[in-house]
Parts: sequence; structure tokens; C-alpha cells
Amino acid sequence: MLALGLMPSAPAHAFSLQGDGKGKHIVILGGGLAGMTAAYELNKLGYRTTILEARNRSGGRVFSVRKGSTHQEVGGPVLTSTFDEGQYFNAGPSRIPHHHKLTLHYCKELGVPLEVYNNVNESTYYFSEGKGKLSNQKVRAREIHNDMRGYTSELLAKALDQDKLDLAMSKEDAAKVLEYLRAEGGLDIDKLYKASARRGYLEAPGAGEKSGKIADPHKLVDIIQSGLLDPDFYNVAEYTYELQMTMFQAVGGMDSIAKALEKKIAGSLKFGAEVKAITNVADGVKVTYKDKTGEHEIKGDICICTLPLPVLSNINHNFASDVSRAIDFVPYIQTGKIGLQFKRRFWEEDEHIFGGITHTNNDLTQIFYPSNGYLGKKGVLIGCYNFNDKAKRVGDMSVAEREKFALEKGSLIHPQYKQEFENSFSVTWHKTLYNMGGWAVYGSEERKNLYPALLKPDKNVYFAGEHTTYLTAWMAGAFESARSTVAAVHSRLAEQRVQYPTTTNKG
Amino acid sequence: MLALGLMPSAPAHAFSLQGDGKGKHIVILGGGLAGMTAAYELNKLGYRTTILEARNRSGGRVFSVRKGSTHQEVGGPVLTSTFDEGQYFNAGPSRIPHHHKLTLHYCKELGVPLEVYNNVNESTYYFSEGKGKLSNQKVRAREIHNDMRGYTSELLAKALDQDKLDLAMSKEDAAKVLEYLRAEGGLDIDKLYKASARRGYLEAPGAGEKSGKIADPHKLVDIIQSGLLDPDFYNVAEYTYELQMTMFQAVGGMDSIAKALEKKIAGSLKFGAEVKAITNVADGVKVTYKDKTGEHEIKGDICICTLPLPVLSNINHNFASDVSRAIDFVPYIQTGKIGLQFKRRFWEEDEHIFGGITHTNNDLTQIFYPSNGYLGKKGVLIGCYNFNDKAKRVGDMSVAEREKFALEKGSLIHPQYKQEFENSFSVTWHKTLYNMGGWAVYGSEERKNLYPALLKPDKNVYFAGEHTTYLTAWMAGAFESARSTVAAVHSRLAEQRVQYPTTTNKG
Repeated sequence: MLALGLMPSAPAHAFSLQGDGKGKHIVILGGGLAGMTAAYELNKLGYRTTILEARNRSGGRVFSVRKGSTHQEVGGPVLTSTFDEGQYFNAGPSRIPHHHKLTLHYCKELGVPLEVYNNVNESTYYFSEGKGKLSNQKVRAREIHNDMRGYTSELLAKALDQDKLDLAMSKEDAAKVLEYLRAEGGLDIDKLYKASARRGYLEAPGAGEKSGKIADPHKLVDIIQSGLLDPDFYNVAEYTYELQMTMFQAVGGMDSIAKALEKKIAGSLKFGAEVKAITNVADGVKVTYKDKTGEHEIKGDICICTLPLPVLSNINHNFASDVSRAIDFVPYIQTGKIGLQFKRRFWEEDEHIFGGITHTNNDLTQIFYPSNGYLGKKGVLIGCYNFNDKAKRVGDMSVAEREKFALEKGSLIHPQYKQEFENSFSVTWHKTLYNMGGWAVYGSEERKNLYPALLKPDKNVYFAGEHTTYLTAWMAGAFESARSTVAAVHSRLAEQRVQYPTTTNKG
Repeated sequence: MLALGLMPSAPAHAFSLQGDGKGKHIVILGGGLAGMTAAYELNKLGYRTTILEARNRSGGRVFSVRKGSTHQEVGGPVLTSTFDEGQYFNAGPSRIPHHHKLTLHYCKELGVPLEVYNNVNESTYYFSEGKGKLSNQKVRAREIHNDMRGYTSELLAKALDQDKLDLAMSKEDAAKVLEYLRAEGGLDIDKLYKASARRGYLEAPGAGEKSGKIADPHKLVDIIQSGLLDPDFYNVAEYTYELQMTMFQAVGGMDSIAKALEKKIAGSLKFGAEVKAITNVADGVKVTYKDKTGEHEIKGDICICTLPLPVLSNINHNFASDVSRAIDFVPYIQTGKIGLQFKRRFWEEDEHIFGGITHTNNDLTQIFYPSNGYLGKKGVLIGCYNFNDKAKRVGDMSVAEREKFALEKGSLIHPQYKQEFENSFSVTWHKTLYNMGGWAVYGSEERKNLYPALLKPDKNVYFAGEHTTYLTAWMAGAFESARSTVAAVHSRLAEQRVQYPTTTNKG
């Protein structure tokens, strides 16, 4: 069996293509990471590029809400953030896995400093609304994690001890598994799970006589009956490959990445340009867009369309039927975040929570504590980050109702909310103009029946963005798809050049 | 049962004592964190303080090795570090748990910026020298963690399914445990552990057709027989309360904390003053010390002795026999670290390891990757951090031999060592002049029989330092003991003042 660790190290992420794109014009739809990265790489190759971006900012879903940030949902007013200078939250992507090599590559190439995003924190809470003994109160994650390690190790050790399982291994090997379970579960000499410092102290140890006081474990039935083994509290946030530490964030806000890219391709970027129609024509693509001054048409040899599918679905096009079907039917997640600015970082000062995520089974779903500005004065936390039905219910509220909801539910966990709250900003992605969804969500059926149509160009139009990858929801999807599309476009145009050579002076 | 999370929040860490120490002189032995913190707090109260520090730097074990740092072991030469400017490693404490409130309090009060110490990293390695199929190769921690979660959950689910365990719970509750095990172990619909993305990819997912390729789990017997369930690889680094995320480090080196304290008490600090004798006298304490100019005597009303016990054990004193016995017999750990500077951060560039710890069963024990300077050019990693017999074996080597050893063993894990190595610096604490040990290690017998003698003053001499706490090995022990000692000293001197009031003019 090949250990992953033994694989040859990945090559450096240089992107060196042969030939140049001189004389060719590529029209790119969408000034998010995928569109800007495509332009950045195409420009390096000598292409002329134009990016049409409907908003007056770049980045798309890479959106850090800070003082003066504006946001508009369908049928709603333009909202402006009143956070203090220096305060922000990432309404879109907020985490970079350490193995998203291309994301790290671009951060390095673009000079965007990174810091650790502290995704794992044993002192955050599980808060279960319900009827069990541990419900309606906050329980530190470490208590449940270590109690469950203890109980499951104890149970399995008992089964092994009593030879109740067909282990298909030698007695000696089984003894090693038992020793492992004792260590894993923190079991005592009799292989029983009892009180353990792993789950924290009732009274902290200190100087002199202060030896510390440990609490008894929670009872397993209480954990079960309080809903703390339900899916709302599963360890997905730590076990999923993408969410395993180490994780990063861009210093000062994830939009630093978008801003750094924007600087590189500023000359290609047309803001306030809303795409109205995309038409494949014999020798290229015709794109109709609308800006403050009216409707315009732009022509490209090739078009790279990075628009989210629910947006593209409402734009006129003459694509083939399988492409059109994919655009109309690939599902997107409903998701939203609510940022809350507080006068005081009470979660740090009072509760010793530095970064990480509190989980709850109510519609808040998660509270993200900031992984920056530790021990500072003020802070913005993400008071709600939810999906699907929960996100729909919250997204259906008015902005004022959302704030009220986040404060009410959040106060159950942090009573300090009431005293310390200053202002909020909510982003509901499935209602957001020019997004209309969080990210593409492919089940195996959609991967089979819809996805393939997006991987090949529809005549002169290529599709890029996270929805054209197996890295949906991640910035890495934007980067990977941009590169892959640029390579495809360049390869095609280079081939055409070989097919129809221009007259060259051989003398 | 009381959930820890529901406890009232701890009070702020202000330290406000009544009365003042005017006219009293406190002699403090040792300019480490305990000694400097005691002086800092005593000075605030109006006492006159003198700290005698044998070295020409403050901080004691809080020692960040950087360009020009010097270090001396018993019988050895003075060594000077040749690291590049800006490169360093923490030879002493390198981590601050998020619940060490007093450490965080002093960092905040002294203006020492903190950053996350990334103690948990699923992409570091387990490297087991041995005979099993997974031995002598590096295996990512995530592979073993998730394989073991999978196998143990599968085994326990099987036992539960077959009603082989007396669970003492309802069928409904048992069903919830089964569902939990399925999620915890990443089991399939049949509750079997198979391939899972949690343990990483053989080929990463990407754009277009790149769906990613997952490897099969390691076989349980291979894991066992390769020693990967042995104590060397237990999850202590993640489960221990003190090592649970969130952890911090001082930006730029842990010695920032010592330097910030030193600034506050610079007037009290005598460098190069080696204590030779401590004598309780009727009205105070007489301390004999030696510096460049010869032997001197200093008199204090009270003495606070923070010297490590193995050092104190070789200093003349007239303490009571129980105190003397504690000083001579409290065991200290043997421990050492070797910092290695490399031209290139190959662990990041080639292997995507950002911070965290690689574990091995050879004498290196651990490799600590730096939690700072991510994605930079050069870096210093701690190529060896070991204890007890392993530390003794390595510490017995010459400095050149230690380097050779660290490079040889480390190259088994990172073949890049040979190409990229620049220079090294090793610190063996149990051989270090003025330390002679890592930290106090109390078994329950020593806590009962030796420890109590150190908690009360021997006449006019008080003892402080991590060895007078239940926070041994942590900077928190120094801070907590300093505070606790200052409170005791102040309370005594304030009482004396009440007992023998000076004449006051009542007119």
C-alpha cells in the first residue's frame, strides 16, 4: 500500500505555456477570482482581455464586509456596512486549506500575507436546544469530544476484553489495540472512563495548593438525549479533509486576494457592466451588456464565462441544449452569514474562546469567532452561518429581523450580546444580486448528467468558476478552473495559428 | 451535572493589593519570568527590589535562540548562534494554552503581541522505525487518525449491532450511538470503514474531469505492527488540556515576554550576579553573590528565591531540613531541543506542512515546524525535542554530534535536509548552567512528601517558580507563583506594620 506521505512532492506551480496570444481578444464574464485569474494569465501570454463585471467591486463571492461595503439582495435596497474602521468579516470564503496549493501559490505570487485560520478550537461550545439534561446550556466541545472518546473506547475495550469480537488478529496485536484504546479514551487502569483533565477543569490548577478540580464526565445517555450526537454536532468541522488544520486566511480580509488580482488586471476590468446576452457567432462571441450609459456590444474571439449558473440562467444565449440544461438545473446551495460587531471581545475576555466555531442545532447553525485581532478591543463575529432550509428561513426575513434573530438566539449562548452589540450586516447569497446562490452542489446524478456539458466549450464560449470543478465552494475551484480554461483556450488558439499560418517573411 | 461552560466567567486579572511596601527591600533570586514578575508587582506596591541574575540576559528558560544568542552547558564552551537575522526558535517554552489566563493577561498588559501556535496539523507525519509495512516511511497523521477512527467505530458498531454489549440504554438511544459512530468513523451505509477523503488524496481533486483519487485505508494489522499505536504516537499532543487548540506564541519569539518584563523592572536587575549563599538572619536575609568584580553581600527584609531546585541544591543555605530535602530531591526532567536553520522551507513548499509536529519513535521524538514566517524563504525548525532517556542520550553527545544525529535521523523523514541545511543550535536543559533541568516533575509521592515544604516561607525566604505550582513546565506556573508569593509577602509585611505601628502624627 502506498503511503500518501511517500508520494513525490508536487511540482512548483509555475504556469508556463508556449506561444503568445497577440492579436486575440478574450471577453471574460465576471470579475470574481476565476475571471480575474483567467485575465491575469491570459495577459501574461499577450492576449487582450476584457472583463465585464456587473458590480462596482471585484471579487464576487470573495467579499469582506467592512466599513462602507455595500450589498444588495433581489428586490431590496442597497445596504451599507457601518462597521468600525478595521473591523470586518468574510461574507464569502473565509478559509484556505493548507493543501489548496494553487490558492497558496497565487497568494505568494500576488504578495498577499496569510495567517492561520483557527478552525479547530476545543473551547468553543455545543449548544443544543431541546429537552435533554445538557440541552439549553452551553457545553464546551472538549467535554463532548473527550467524553465520547472515553465512552466509545471503554465500550470497545470491554468487547475486546471479553473476546466478543472476531478481530482476526493475534492476541498480541489485540493487546496493542487495547493499550491504544486506553490512551485514546483516557481510560484508567481498569479501562474505565472516569474524570479526566482533558475535558477541562472546574477550578484551574495554579500555584501552591491549587491542584485543580476536575468534573465528572457527562453521562452518555444525557449526551445522547440532549441531541449532542446528532448531525448538527458531528465532527465534520475537524475531520473533513478541507477543514483539517492547518487552515489560513488572508491578513485583513479575504478580499485582499481579489484586490491584489484586480491590481494586476485593472486595465481589463469594466465595472458596472451587466451582461444581457451571449451569442456565439461564426468568428467569435458577441456579448451584450448594459452600464450606466446604456446597452453596448463587445466582440471577442473567445469568451470565458465565469458567471454563477443561476445568474447565467437569466441571460439570453444561444448555447446548445445540454449546456442550457446544465445552466438551468445544476443546484446551488442556499446559504447566508450574519456579521455582528461587538464593543468588546467578550468571547475572548470572559470565555477564553480564540477563533473556532460554536455549533448549535437552532437556525444559527454556527458562530464563527474571528481568527484575527486576538486580545483586541472590538470584534466582529459571524453570528450565523447556515445552509439549506435554515438559510432559507433566515434569508426570508428582513435585514432587521435577521439581526433580531441572530441576537436572540446568540444571547442564549452568549448573554453578553445584549450589552455589547453595536451593529450587524447580513449577506444571503441565494438572494444576492449577481450571485443567486452559494455554490454549485453536485450530487452524483448531476455530476453524471449535467456537469460534463460545462467542461467543453460551447463553440467559442468556455465556462469557468468553482462550478466547473470538484472543488466547489472553494477559492481553489476558481483558480484551478481559470488555469485549466486558459490552457484550453490557449491551446486552441495556438493550434488555429498552426492551421492557418499568416504569411511570414522567410528572407 | 454542571457544564463547565455555564460557570461564571473568571474575574478580570487585575492584582490590587492594599497598603504599600515603602521602606522594605526584597531580594529576588533569578531573573526569569517568576522573579521579574515578582519584582514588577512588588515595585507597583512601592517595595524596593533587587533581582540577582547569574546570566547576562533575563528570561531563564524563556530563551529564544537567534543570531548572536549565547548558551553554555556544564563543562562546555560558550556557544554563539549563527542563525540569520530574523530566524529563531524557542529553546524553552514555545506554546501558550488559551486557558492560561494570567499568561495572556501579562502579554496584554505588557503589550506583547501574540499569534496562533498551530499545535494541531493533520498533515504532519508519523515516522516509525521498525519492521512493519508502514515502518521506515512517513505516513501523514490524518491517515492514521482517520483509519483508527474508522476501524474502532466499525468494530464498536458491529458489537452494538449484534447486541454483544450490555449498553444499559434504550434501543432508540443505541441507534443514535450507531449513527454517531457512522459519522465519527466515516463508515459507509453498511457501517464498514472503507476509503475516505478524510485521509487525503492520492490525486487531488481539481477542475473539469479531475474528481480526485482516494487511497485505500491502511490495514489495521499494518498500523499495529508498524508501531503506530505505540505510545510514541499517542494523541497526547492534541488531547491534553494544555495542548488543545487554541494555542499561542509571542510574535517574534517567546523572549518578547521576558524582554517586555525586563523593561519594566530594569532598575532592579543585576546581571552576571551568581548566588553563592542564602542565609536567613534575625531581621531578614543575607545573600552572597559573585560577579565580575568579586564576591558581595546583599541584605533584604525578605528574599524570594526562584532558582531552579537543581541549581539551588548547590548553593549554601541554612534552610530547614524539609526544605533542604525538597530542594535536593524533587526530580527535574531531562530535555533538549535542536534548532536547525534551512535555506528553504521545504516542509511547506514540497510537503504542505505549516506548523504542527511530526512524531517519531527514534530519539528525535518530535520535529516542530515553525508557526511563523509561513511561505517565507528560510526557516528554523526544531529538529529534535525529546525527554528522559532519549534526551540524556542526545545531551551526552557533543554539539557537533547532536547536529549530525539530528540531520541523519531527520533526513529519513525529510531527505531535503541534506540539500537545504545551513546551521544548528542545541540546548540541553539538564546540562545547562543555571538551569540543570527542564522543569520539576512531581509524582504523587513527591507532591505529598516534598512539595509542601516549598509552599511556605523558610523564615524570611519564599520560594517561587513553576516548581511551586501545579502548572509545572508552563510559563503560567512562573506567573501564578510570582503573584501568589507577592501576595503572601505583602500580607506578611502589611501585618507586621499593623503589629508594630510607627508613630503617626494624629494632630
